[in-house]
Amino acid sequence: MNMIKAGFQGVSGSFSEEALFSYFSSNLKAVAFPEFEDIMFAIREGHIDYGILPVENSSTGAITQVYDLLNQHEAYITGEICLKVKQHLLALPGAGIEDIKEVYSHPQGFEQSRPFLKQYPSWKLIPYYNTAKSAELVKESQSKSMGAIASGKAAELYELSILRESINYNTLNTTRFIILSKELKVGEECNKISIVLSTKHIAGSLYNVLRHFAENKINMLKIESRPIPDKPWEYFFYVDIEGNLADDTIQLAIENIKKDSEYFKILGNYRKFEE
Amino acid sequence: MNMIKAGFQGVSGSFSEEALFSYFSSNLKAVAFPEFEDIMFAIREGHIDYGILPVENSSTGAITQVYDLLNQHEAYITGEICLKVKQHLLALPGAGIEDIKEVYSHPQGFEQSRPFLKQYPSWKLIPYYNTAKSAELVKESQSKSMGAIASGKAAELYELSILRESINYNTLNTTRFIILSKELKVGEECNKISIVLSTKHIAGSLYNVLRHFAENKINMLKIESRPIPDKPWEYFFYVDIEGNLADDTIQLAIENIKKDSEYFKILGNYRKFEE
Repeated sequence: MNMIKAGFQGVSGSFSEEALFSYFSSNLKAVAFPEFEDIMFAIREGHIDYGILPVENSSTGAITQVYDLLNQHEAYITGEICLKVKQHLLALPGAGIEDIKEVYSHPQGFEQSRPFLKQYPSWKLIPYYNTAKSAELVKESQSKSMGAIASGKAAELYELSILRESINYNTLNTTRFIILSKELKVGEECNKISIVLSTKHIAGSLYNVLRHFAENKINMLKIESRPIPDKPWEYFFYVDIEGNLADDTIQLAIENIKKDSEYFKILGNYRKFEE
Repeated sequence: MNMIKAGFQGVSGSFSEEALFSYFSSNLKAVAFPEFEDIMFAIREGHIDYGILPVENSSTGAITQVYDLLNQHEAYITGEICLKVKQHLLALPGAGIEDIKEVYSHPQGFEQSRPFLKQYPSWKLIPYYNTAKSAELVKESQSKSMGAIASGKAAELYELSILRESINYNTLNTTRFIILSKELKVGEECNKISIVLSTKHIAGSLYNVLRHFAENKINMLKIESRPIPDKPWEYFFYVDIEGNLADDTIQLAIENIKKDSEYFKILGNYRKFEE
C-alpha cells in the first residue's frame, strides 16, 4: 500500500501538522516546508500528493496570504478540516510566571491571547515565525526569562512546561485548514465549492454577480475580499457556496457569473467539514 | 485660533503621522499613541479631537484589527485620506549592502518588499512593532549588520542612510487612512457611508441585505468580512457605499437593511478621497 505524501508549513509540533494527521488518519508521510508558498511549488512539481494550508481562524479571520496563493497558483482544494486551537504560555521547566520578561509567538498567537497578555504589561512581546518555532527558540535559549505562546504538542516536543493553560480568550477558537492537490476532483461527496472572481469596474457589479446564486437558490457560505495589487481599490472576491460542480443548477449559475465577471477561477469542490 | 489635537499610532516618522499632517494641513498638534486602540480611548475621553488609523493598503489589503476596533468602539469616521507608500532599505551611514545580516520591519514592510528580499535569502527577517520603530532600533544598535525597511521620513529622523530606494514591489502601493471623531457628522460634502452588519444565519441572507442597495441604485464600493469571535464561521460585513445619510433613498435602504440584518451600525459619513 502506497504512503500518502503530504506537506505542511512550519516545524514539527505546529497546528498544521496536527490537522494533517487528523485529516489523513493513517498511512501518511508528513513533510515540513518553511513557507506557505513552498507547498504550492511542491504540489506543482509532484513532490507531494497533497498539501495543507490554514485558511481561516474563527477569532482572527482570514489568513490572507493563503487566499492570495490560491489565486496565484494552480492547485485545487480537495478537502477541509477544522481544528480547535488551544494556546498555552510555555517556558523552561522550573521557570515561574514572575521570571518571564519576553514572550515569543506568531502575531496571531498574541492576538488570540490579548486579554491574558494585558495582565502583564511589562512583558516584551516579540513576533516570531510561528508558534512552534517560538517554543523551539525558548528551548534553545535556555533562558528562564523567555516564554512562548504555542500548542501543547509544541510543549511536549521541546520539553517545555505549560506555565498557563489555554490563554486564548476564545475557547471556541478554531482554525480551518484546506487540503490541496494538483488536480480538480469532483466526487459525489463534494458539497462545497470555492471560487474567486473580480467584477467589472462599474456600479452594482458585485451585486450583479451574486444575484446568480440567489436566483438559482444556491447558498453562499462566505465572501472574502482581497486587493488586486496593480489596481488600487479593486478586489478579488473569494466566494464559498454550497453545491457540486456536476449539478446542472451550479453549472448554469457559474456560466452566468463568468459572463458578468472580469475574472473567474474555480478553486475546488470538496466535502464541507462537519464535526 | 484653537489648535486641532489629533492622535496617530506609532512613533514620529510613521506613515500615520505623515497622513495626519496631509489631512489637517495646518494648525495641528499631533499626539503619538503606542496602540491602535489607544486612539479609540483617547477620542472617547476627549483627550483628542480626531484620531487617524490606517484601514487598508492597496497591495496587502485590510488592516483587520482596525475594522474590529471600529465595531467595538463608539467613534465615527469623518474623513479619509490615501497616501502612497514608499519603503526603503535603511542602514547606518557607511554600511554597505554586503554588511547587512538582519533586517527589521513591520510584517507588512516585509510583505510589500518580498520580491526584493528574495534576492538576499541569507538575511534574517525579524518582524518588529512598526517600520519607524525598526529604524529607531537600527539607529540605537549602532550595528552595521542591521537594516530596517521604513519610510524616507524615518531615515531622516533617525539619521540613517537609504541603502536601496523604493524596494516595495508595487509602486502604486497606497494606504488608506480614516479620520475618526466622537460624533457622527453629516455634512453636505459627505458622499461615502461606512456601515457594519451581521446577517441572520439563514441561507441567502447576505444577498437579501445587499439587494436593498441595488434596488435603490446605491453603489457599493467595498465589502470586507470579519469573524464574529463567539460564533465560529459567522461574520460581520463592513460595507462602504456611495451617498449621504440625509438622502431619502439612503434612509429607505438603511431602514430595510436594518430589518433584514441581525446587527447593524453606522460607522460614519464622510467625503470620499479623490486625488
